[in-house]
Amino acid sequence: MIITIRQETSGESRAQLMALLCRITGSQRPITTTQMRDREVIAIDSALVDAQAQVALQAQSAVEQIYSPKTPYQLASRSFQTENTSITIGSNSDCTPITIGGNSARPVIMAGPCAVENREQLITTAQAVKRAGAQVLRGGAFKPRTSPYQFQGLGIEGLHLLAEARTLTGLPVITEVMEPGMVETVAQYADVLQIGARNVQNFPLLSAAGHHSKKLPVLLKRGLSSTIDEWLLAAEYIIAAGNPNVILCERGIRSYDPQTRNVLDLSCVPLLHQLTHLPIIVDPSHSTGRRELVPIMSRASIAAEAQGLIIEVHPDPDTALCDGKQSITPEQLEKIVRETALLATMMRGEVSVA
Amino acid sequence: MIITIRQETSGESRAQLMALLCRITGSQRPITTTQMRDREVIAIDSALVDAQAQVALQAQSAVEQIYSPKTPYQLASRSFQTENTSITIGSNSDCTPITIGGNSARPVIMAGPCAVENREQLITTAQAVKRAGAQVLRGGAFKPRTSPYQFQGLGIEGLHLLAEARTLTGLPVITEVMEPGMVETVAQYADVLQIGARNVQNFPLLSAAGHHSKKLPVLLKRGLSSTIDEWLLAAEYIIAAGNPNVILCERGIRSYDPQTRNVLDLSCVPLLHQLTHLPIIVDPSHSTGRRELVPIMSRASIAAEAQGLIIEVHPDPDTALCDGKQSITPEQLEKIVRETALLATMMRGEVSVA
Amino acid sequence: MIITIRQETSGESRAQLMALLCRITGSQRPITTTQMRDREVIAIDSALVDAQAQVALQAQSAVEQIYSPKTPYQLASRSFQTENTSITIGSNSDCTPITIGGNSARPVIMAGPCAVENREQLITTAQAVKRAGAQVLRGGAFKPRTSPYQFQGLGIEGLHLLAEARTLTGLPVITEVMEPGMVETVAQYADVLQIGARNVQNFPLLSAAGHHSKKLPVLLKRGLSSTIDEWLLAAEYIIAAGNPNVILCERGIRSYDPQTRNVLDLSCVPLLHQLTHLPIIVDPSHSTGRRELVPIMSRASIAAEAQGLIIEVHPDPDTALCDGKQSITPEQLEKIVRETALLATMMRGEVSVA
Amino acid sequence: MIITIRQETSGESRAQLMALLCRITGSQRPITTTQMRDREVIAIDSALVDAQAQVALQAQSAVEQIYSPKTPYQLASRSFQTENTSITIGSNSDCTPITIGGNSARPVIMAGPCAVENREQLITTAQAVKRAGAQVLRGGAFKPRTSPYQFQGLGIEGLHLLAEARTLTGLPVITEVMEPGMVETVAQYADVLQIGARNVQNFPLLSAAGHHSKKLPVLLKRGLSSTIDEWLLAAEYIIAAGNPNVILCERGIRSYDPQTRNVLDLSCVPLLHQLTHLPIIVDPSHSTGRRELVPIMSRASIAAEAQGLIIEVHPDPDTALCDGKQSITPEQLEKIVRETALLATMMRGEVSVA
Repeated sequence: MIITIRQETSGESRAQLMALLCRITGSQRPITTTQMRDREVIAIDSALVDAQAQVALQAQSAVEQIYSPKTPYQLASRSFQTENTSITIGSNSDCTPITIGGNSARPVIMAGPCAVENREQLITTAQAVKRAGAQVLRGGAFKPRTSPYQFQGLGIEGLHLLAEARTLTGLPVITEVMEPGMVETVAQYADVLQIGARNVQNFPLLSAAGHHSKKLPVLLKRGLSSTIDEWLLAAEYIIAAGNPNVILCERGIRSYDPQTRNVLDLSCVPLLHQLTHLPIIVDPSHSTGRRELVPIMSRASIAAEAQGLIIEVHPDPDTALCDGKQSITPEQLEKIVRETALLATMMRGEVSVA
Repeated sequence: MIITIRQETSGESRAQLMALLCRITGSQRPITTTQMRDREVIAIDSALVDAQAQVALQAQSAVEQIYSPKTPYQLASRSFQTENTSITIGSNSDCTPITIGGNSARPVIMAGPCAVENREQLITTAQAVKRAGAQVLRGGAFKPRTSPYQFQGLGIEGLHLLAEARTLTGLPVITEVMEPGMVETVAQYADVLQIGARNVQNFPLLSAAGHHSKKLPVLLKRGLSSTIDEWLLAAEYIIAAGNPNVILCERGIRSYDPQTRNVLDLSCVPLLHQLTHLPIIVDPSHSTGRRELVPIMSRASIAAEAQGLIIEVHPDPDTALCDGKQSITPEQLEKIVRETALLATMMRGEVSVA
Repeated sequence: MIITIRQETSGESRAQLMALLCRITGSQRPITTTQMRDREVIAIDSALVDAQAQVALQAQSAVEQIYSPKTPYQLASRSFQTENTSITIGSNSDCTPITIGGNSARPVIMAGPCAVENREQLITTAQAVKRAGAQVLRGGAFKPRTSPYQFQGLGIEGLHLLAEARTLTGLPVITEVMEPGMVETVAQYADVLQIGARNVQNFPLLSAAGHHSKKLPVLLKRGLSSTIDEWLLAAEYIIAAGNPNVILCERGIRSYDPQTRNVLDLSCVPLLHQLTHLPIIVDPSHSTGRRELVPIMSRASIAAEAQGLIIEVHPDPDTALCDGKQSITPEQLEKIVRETALLATMMRGEVSVA
Repeated sequence: MIITIRQETSGESRAQLMALLCRITGSQRPITTTQMRDREVIAIDSALVDAQAQVALQAQSAVEQIYSPKTPYQLASRSFQTENTSITIGSNSDCTPITIGGNSARPVIMAGPCAVENREQLITTAQAVKRAGAQVLRGGAFKPRTSPYQFQGLGIEGLHLLAEARTLTGLPVITEVMEPGMVETVAQYADVLQIGARNVQNFPLLSAAGHHSKKLPVLLKRGLSSTIDEWLLAAEYIIAAGNPNVILCERGIRSYDPQTRNVLDLSCVPLLHQLTHLPIIVDPSHSTGRRELVPIMSRASIAAEAQGLIIEVHPDPDTALCDGKQSITPEQLEKIVRETALLATMMRGEVSVA
């Protein structure tokens, strides 16, 4: 059940509503509100609201409207918010802000190395992806690795290097955060918080990414075998905790054929556009795990109405400390940027045959 | 091991080679040859050929060349035949032949009802898909249905109706064959034999489709959970039995999320182009099972370098006897034909921004 | 909808019923009846029977009862037949018949080589599995192989050898049939027809196994990624075509971890006992693909209430032409026979601690 | 690479070794040692140790032995430690300690409610599962729930109730921990830390469970679609961080058939016994999601050589706040305890037919 709060509600009316909601839900803590577009909203479990409680809620002067979506996710649902969510990346830092979602038609390309390895590798790559036309720099400082004996990332040092790369290139930075206790720290450096596939149901982390003070955009990757509903409910954790700026990222699902690292489920892109107002991008690198498939699947992703791509790029893929097999060169990236921009133009009906 | 037969080999040399091959392989029956492009070839199990046998083979005057691919599939392998296979559909009948594969860049659109239900439904749909720009008419006369109590198709009567629809529209016809004993019968009426997902490892059927007298093109759908290797080996059964005209069709694989009927594995399209010279098309209807996803996934399929599409169309999808939920209208088809043709043009580098 | 036919119905009443059913269903061919326990039954699609047709059916003197199961499978449903189906194996031949299903508590062990390779291998193995306590001899004469270049079985010669092995050992024989046109031929030699995982939705084959003259028991393996419903509907094809003697065999389903060949879904055994009256056995060889897991998973299968096992045994597994990695020795088989018999005894409450 | 430290090594030699290891691995922080049985060990990434470094290591007086397993997991590998790990549960608290693993043959039954709902529900259930013969009490205080709107557990209050239930019944307590920052807190109350399926690759949590001061046993559930290797590497994270007391728990993997909540992969139990020395138990409740399958799959699990079970029990399953559909009653639990104990006795060869 979603409650929209009337604009210019007095502090008293608001406090009264919160107290009532605490009684209804049995919550000991204050209820969280989320600013979605021009509305402030609260979502709670409908099952806790009986007929009498509903009457009491509707009588509150702070309450503008009450809506009950039919889907288990509420704030993420297209039925609640019909307009696309528009998210600005990079508004708080020394970089060029860009917009994803909303009415924006140009694909947002995020690119960079799997892991930040050292200053030179990062700065070189950052400058190369900037030249290639990417709008956001990706790079892992904290790396979730299957084995404790694999390279785990440079940590805080990696964050410093990312911030430096941003200053040098003007590209906003996306990097992964792996635990709730680190969200505020990573948010000091990053422009987008990435939550990886293995953490899609790390609920304390999702909540922390919702609660954090800067409300930075969160890129939420699909889990290795997430259903669409589970994934949207993971997004709902973030939004319900106060942060509406969630970008979904399809990165392939686990399947039975070792030919590709995962199976890229491109049909989920148009399906998600029906179900949710959140922006959706695709990761052609992790989904295929094969660099030679990245350019073609980038194009197919945009054709499927993805609003962006996140791509692993390395100046010398064969020497990468992590995921070299799926990294492309800056030259290949440039071609992808050009081709997907043309495709997006075509999809708006603005091309003609030569 | 693939043996290429020298052109203008005498009957005697050829018989000598066949006899030697029977001895080497232990086969009681004559060895099958396949005409691939301008070469006549024979493939056998390399493991049966020891060093001495290899020497004996190379000494045969009928033998032009011996090649051993590293993949388990041999004749289907891109390493053996680097040029795309080009297949003509409709050469034997009262219809407009079209080409798939080779250097042909225009997507081949096959469309029509899931099942032939009656004369009116079929003829109406056939004329509508023709008007919409499709080049091949699809329609099931023999339907593999999960339950014995579901409509099983009109059988032979359905084949007669398909032939009539071809005469009226000039569209070549593709229809499914489900058992080896029916291959010659279906081949009397059809222009392309379809082998469905449930029969991808029906080996007697694959062999029969390879052996049949007309060597009609065979559309081989991927199985519900086929690996790429299993699928290419199924194609190999057909080619090794004498018929090189195999078209692969990705139609989604089984996965865990009930949101879509299957998961469309689009990455397999560029992957297959690396591994094999056979043409590849996509079935956006069965893969998604949701009609509203069909137009977008059609576009994405062409962007992923599929050489064609097979789409379920029904004049009134909601009343279809079979698969109505995933059928589109002729109007939607027309839009797909236009859009994919434009996209293919763009991919050849022949468009410019308006 | 299931129609039970009154015992001692006159030929005329019966003909009248059949004619009515043909009108109702629109079938051109005579309707098939199946003898299930002491009842003769006919199942048709309920959706074809409107209120008026139902009244007409009930008025027929040949009709004893009409029942409409809620599951898509009808004759296979436990709700229709609450007692376990009991199937006799080997009643028509020079061997010791055994019973599976019904009230029989002793596990039925079927064992033998993956493929019949030659006379000596088969006879040696047959005698060894007999000594080890197995009750049925398995062996493939027609082998469905992923590649056309793999050993495809000895064919008819293999059937002859199996028949000879039966005469020598008194063990009934189970062997695979792969195409409808071969069902009558294989039924001349076999005591149980096996339909393999790849053919679970080969509907013409299922129908032929239902129609064939001897009504031999059919062992129906689960498909690589069959749902329980699909599998029971495949069984329904056989029963509805006239043969109630279907044994289900769980053999593992396809999944993502290459550590085992398939994932043995043992929970399906007690689940199937709820849903159907058909006997259920387990194949621990194909499901695990690892010989060292076969003895333990055999025990676990019986603990899960499987009524039998089908196990690959080879006198010298490392030299087997097919599936050696998963074949066990006759010595290991003997231990399995002993241990599973003791476990079955324990499960009947007839053991005490030493 | 595993380095075994010589017993009675002086502080100086040890410090020297640590300094060398920091230089070799490039680590800024002290290297972690783990006490495994009577040996103190350190595992590092072999790839970081070149020939020269290896010589330097072997020259250290603190080094007893150097071993390089071939598997990616090292300390968890059976090749490194051939004897079963034996873990005592409940040694630090007012309860009856029990042992799992080692030579212990009696199955360890952990049982209790999915979630701690209130004092009465917990105490009643705890006393009932004690009477039924279970040895460990399970109960969730922090619940990972798919939706933010579902009941999330009582939190700290739930931990207090669990501790009270332990005092009243003498049963050690297992409960879930969901974030690194809460490990020390939960460890104050629990006897076993549970890490759930969704957190199997929550690497900071795994490390925290390894580092925590009490080195409590950790029950590590398999992830929704973990491979065996990924799961053992998750265990390796815990062990390498200093805690050798890891119990693995198979709880079903995600698959395509909605008939059961997950697919219980029982074959992984004997497979894991080959690969690792860690104890392995099974969760028949979450794997099947159907209460009527729990007793039979409990028996099958023990037959597959699981060393214990973790089962959801509720005094009134139909009113449970969480997972009622898969919870059994205390009466059913008692039967499972009796039956699995008898089966374990039979498996030791100590029963005879009545």
